[in-house]
Amino acid sequence: QDPAGRRTAVPGVATGLAVTGAGGDVLYVEASLADPETGGTALNLTGQLGDVMKESAQIALSFLRSHGAELELPVGDLKDRGVHLHVPAGAVPKDGPSAGITMTTALASLLSGRQVRADVAMTGEVSLTGRVLPIGGVKQKLLAAHRAGITTVLIPQRNEPDLDDVPAEVLDRLTVHPVSDVRQVLELALEPAGAAAHTVAAA
Amino acid sequence: QDPAGRRTAVPGVATGLAVTGAGGDVLYVEASLADPETGGTALNLTGQLGDVMKESAQIALSFLRSHGAELELPVGDLKDRGVHLHVPAGAVPKDGPSAGITMTTALASLLSGRQVRADVAMTGEVSLTGRVLPIGGVKQKLLAAHRAGITTVLIPQRNEPDLDDVPAEVLDRLTVHPVSDVRQVLELALEPAGAAAHTVAAA
Amino acid sequence: QDPAGRRTAVPGVATGLAVTGAGGDVLYVEASLADPETGGTALNLTGQLGDVMKESAQIALSFLRSHGAELELPVGDLKDRGVHLHVPAGAVPKDGPSAGITMTTALASLLSGRQVRADVAMTGEVSLTGRVLPIGGVKQKLLAAHRAGITTVLIPQRNEPDLDDVPAEVLDRLTVHPVSDVRQVLELALEPAGAAAHTVAAA
Amino acid sequence: QDPAGRRTAVPGVATGLAVTGAGGDVLYVEASLADPETGGTALNLTGQLGDVMKESAQIALSFLRSHGAELELPVGDLKDRGVHLHVPAGAVPKDGPSAGITMTTALASLLSGRQVRADVAMTGEVSLTGRVLPIGGVKQKLLAAHRAGITTVLIPQRNEPDLDDVPAEVLDRLTVHPVSDVRQVLELALEPAGAAAHTVAAA
Amino acid sequence: QDPAGRRTAVPGVATGLAVTGAGGDVLYVEASLADPETGGTALNLTGQLGDVMKESAQIALSFLRSHGAELELPVGDLKDRGVHLHVPAGAVPKDGPSAGITMTTALASLLSGRQVRADVAMTGEVSLTGRVLPIGGVKQKLLAAHRAGITTVLIPQRNEPDLDDVPAEVLDRLTVHPVSDVRQVLELALEPAGAAAHTVAAA
Amino acid sequence: QDPAGRRTAVPGVATGLAVTGAGGDVLYVEASLADPETGGTALNLTGQLGDVMKESAQIALSFLRSHGAELELPVGDLKDRGVHLHVPAGAVPKDGPSAGITMTTALASLLSGRQVRADVAMTGEVSLTGRVLPIGGVKQKLLAAHRAGITTVLIPQRNEPDLDDVPAEVLDRLTVHPVSDVRQVLELALEPAGAAAHTVAAA
Ligand SMILES: [Ca+2]
Ligand SMILES: [Ca+2]
Ligand SMILES: [Ca+2]
Ligand SMILES: [Ca+2]
Ligand SMILES: [Ca+2]
Ligand SMILES: [Ca+2]
Ligand SMILES: [Ca+2]
Ligand SMILES: [Ca+2]
Ligand SMILES: [Ca+2]
Ligand SMILES: [Ca+2]
Ligand SMILES: [Ca+2]
Ligand SMILES: [Ca+2]
Repeated sequence: QDPAGRRTAVPGVATGLAVTGAGGDVLYVEASLADPETGGTALNLTGQLGDVMKESAQIALSFLRSHGAELELPVGDLKDRGVHLHVPAGAVPKDGPSAGITMTTALASLLSGRQVRADVAMTGEVSLTGRVLPIGGVKQKLLAAHRAGITTVLIPQRNEPDLDDVPAEVLDRLTVHPVSDVRQVLELALEPAGAAAHTVAAA
Repeated sequence: QDPAGRRTAVPGVATGLAVTGAGGDVLYVEASLADPETGGTALNLTGQLGDVMKESAQIALSFLRSHGAELELPVGDLKDRGVHLHVPAGAVPKDGPSAGITMTTALASLLSGRQVRADVAMTGEVSLTGRVLPIGGVKQKLLAAHRAGITTVLIPQRNEPDLDDVPAEVLDRLTVHPVSDVRQVLELALEPAGAAAHTVAAA
Repeated sequence: QDPAGRRTAVPGVATGLAVTGAGGDVLYVEASLADPETGGTALNLTGQLGDVMKESAQIALSFLRSHGAELELPVGDLKDRGVHLHVPAGAVPKDGPSAGITMTTALASLLSGRQVRADVAMTGEVSLTGRVLPIGGVKQKLLAAHRAGITTVLIPQRNEPDLDDVPAEVLDRLTVHPVSDVRQVLELALEPAGAAAHTVAAA
Repeated sequence: QDPAGRRTAVPGVATGLAVTGAGGDVLYVEASLADPETGGTALNLTGQLGDVMKESAQIALSFLRSHGAELELPVGDLKDRGVHLHVPAGAVPKDGPSAGITMTTALASLLSGRQVRADVAMTGEVSLTGRVLPIGGVKQKLLAAHRAGITTVLIPQRNEPDLDDVPAEVLDRLTVHPVSDVRQVLELALEPAGAAAHTVAAA
Repeated sequence: QDPAGRRTAVPGVATGLAVTGAGGDVLYVEASLADPETGGTALNLTGQLGDVMKESAQIALSFLRSHGAELELPVGDLKDRGVHLHVPAGAVPKDGPSAGITMTTALASLLSGRQVRADVAMTGEVSLTGRVLPIGGVKQKLLAAHRAGITTVLIPQRNEPDLDDVPAEVLDRLTVHPVSDVRQVLELALEPAGAAAHTVAAA
Repeated sequence: QDPAGRRTAVPGVATGLAVTGAGGDVLYVEASLADPETGGTALNLTGQLGDVMKESAQIALSFLRSHGAELELPVGDLKDRGVHLHVPAGAVPKDGPSAGITMTTALASLLSGRQVRADVAMTGEVSLTGRVLPIGGVKQKLLAAHRAGITTVLIPQRNEPDLDDVPAEVLDRLTVHPVSDVRQVLELALEPAGAAAHTVAAA
């Protein structure tokens, strides 16, 4: 895999964590907005996403359509510009709700023009009101984050007890933030406006 | 689960009751309206809802499209703003008509800006004219409501006989309102306009 | 079941008759029109309707779109206001063409603001020109109508021979109108404009 | 069945012929145009039509959209008014291309306001240029037409050899017109403009 | 079958060649454009066409949408007038890419008002840039063309080696043009503008 | 197969590389834009493309909709003109993400009017931000490129180690460019604006 720093060097890309057949893995959620003069509209979802994961994308988008203005995001862009969310690798089927906060973060990053911090990965289901709901595979996901050179991980507050299963030597190298609301996620994960990207060495 | 008080602390969230493989459970119906400047339109339904439950959402929406003005709800918002109804948890398939009044209440709460009372849960099919039709699993649902710290439960009038099966020690702790029309549900479940939320201690 | 008088106490609800696994039963067709300011459009069909029953709804609507003006119905409402037809109970699959005249009547009732007579139930396929075509289960349907306190039943003219199979004691309590055109149905089933509803005692 | 005279007493209904499990039968194709003020648009096809028969309806409509003006039909009505083609009985599945000329005739009758002659039945596939292509079941269809009191039958020219199989006593009572172009069908089947309907005695 | 001269006597019909279970056969591709005042739009494909053949129609249309103006065709008609491509017989399933040049020719004939030469049949896949790609069944197709009274056949240049398999007595009666670009096809197959149709005797 | 020089002699065609049952093969991605006066809109994908390959096309298009203006491409054309991507041969099913950069190149070629270099073939998945992601079958694809007379091949940087498996005599005849961003692909593959096409001898 490419280092996360290279992948997240532009606004619109957030680092998530997945459970795969072979343990955990880092995944990237990429968002794009069509140039209004190209006539692109609607929501486009690619990456062989399953039903549940497609619904997560719709929830992320509706959250921003209803709460984005409060967050001072230029939500008018969502009207004139087609939104595309893609999760590479293109041929690998993916499903589940745990990329919800990653999708919300990728979109908020794109709208705000603020990059996602390269040292941050995240996992958590998001609800329509912005609640962060618990997910599975905390141990495998933290191991994968660590292997990928990530130093900060956001997990749902209700998953805090699962940290007991993570080896101490891994936990010691990670800053883990339990979060209960996606607004906390955005505060922790987005670079300040206009900031240069923090790159992180690849594993 | 989060306490209902935390989930219903914003307008647009109503507490329902479901029968699951393992007895009964509390579920939350979340509604959102897109900011008109985001161009969101149409009805979006997520939460792995089955056919019957999707139809319940359409019935709830049509009831408000045809009767909302009588109820002094700002129904013009339904024109300009995309409606999204979500029922967490995102990966759990759900079906059946018994969330009909809960969906209607979540939408009416959102439109009115009045929170749903945190101590109230409800179950009942809704018809297009607002009739509340009977459902199954009254006993399991009331046990679940009680476990979750709920103190007031709305059930269909035609389900009143099923209260005989509910243990007396549970019924004694619950105020049960049999209802025959969704307008009664809204009167009982919505906080007065401008009122502060009543929170309830979590079980 | 609720008494028909309560269900048909508002314009837009007509009482039909169905054959079920356990004999016959009364069913209600409910129609609604979205408030124009809500932006609702199109035809929405719910109640787990099968293909044939959905087509009946389309035929009922096309009949009114092409012949409603002759019947002095305000058909312009069909342009600006989304039409919803629902047949409770929401979770019970239903199919077949025999609710055609009931659907036409529910819609005509809604458009005209004239309630459907609470003592009338009906069964019959409708064609695009308004012909009433024969259906099955006349005996079970009349028994069910009688059990439900209905006193007047409309059946297709071509089903008149099936009345021979209905027990005399039931037929004696029912006024049965054989009809060949849906215009006859509307004349017999709709209350005069502005009339108070006739209620009927429930069985 | 109703006599054809009663079914075709209004413009927009044409009498076709079908092969069924039990020999041949008469069928009616009904066409309607939505009142423009009702906002109805598009092509609606009902009667449990199979793929091939739905395509026949599209061909009939495209023929009139491209050649109707030559035939002095008010084809502008096809723009502003939703077209519905229905083939009762609603619950009986139907398929095959042989109702093509019947569908074209029903639509041309409706547009022109000229009734279809009550003594005429027809069978034939239609092509996009108006060619009448051969079909099957000529013998069963002519027997059914005769039983139904029809006296004039239109068949594809290329089916003329099949007349050898029809019993002489039936053929003697029928006027059979072999046709190769749907324009011939319209000339033979439509009443003159403003003419009163010719009714035919039912079998 | 009708003679090709009769089928192609109007612009918009081109003669193709198909391989069937019983050897080869002639098929006709018919194109129509809706009269703009009828409101017909979009692309309609009928004749029980399989996926690949439907894609051929889309390629033919896109070729003309992007290159038709160079060919001096009135491509603005494609905007205001619904396009319908039909391949009789309506009940026979058809598939494969080899009607691509026939579909392009039928459409170009219709747009230009120039008939397709009645003595010409053709077979070949078309690409989006107008390349003619090789197909199968050259021998059976040429035998079928000969049986149907066709005297000129257009085949893909890359199929020239397949001519070795065609009996000499058939090849001697046919003029075979190997083509590599659909522009060559149009030059060879379309009558000059305003020319009378050349009819050919039927086999 | 035709020589690549002939296929890529017009803007909008790029040479890709595929793994087939019988080793590797060259494939061509063809792009077209509808003449705005023809009313063509939307994205049309043909060539029996599987789900993953269709998503690649959507990613290619979204990349250009969001980043095309930076690349000085006239992206406004994407608004007014329907885009069609076709991958011959029309009847051969194709799937997988490895044509992503080829699709992006074909579209960029068409928009810019710059031909793709006839001596260049390419393979690589593209992400929404323009990253080039690794693919399979490097050895078979390079052998196929060499057989087809291609002299320059673009592969994903992360596939560089796979070059070890390619026979030295083939590698010696090819210029292989490992690339990590689709912008590099466009720089290497597109002819300068206004340049004459470089043709290459066919194998
Ligand atoms: Ca699923
Ligand atoms: Ca730590
Ligand atoms: Ca279901
Ligand atoms: Ca109590
Ligand atoms: Ca069915
Ligand atoms: Ca009586
Ligand atoms: Ca079929
Ligand atoms: Ca005769
Ligand atoms: Ca296929
Ligand atoms: Ca020759
Ligand atoms: Ca797939
Ligand atoms: Ca080299």
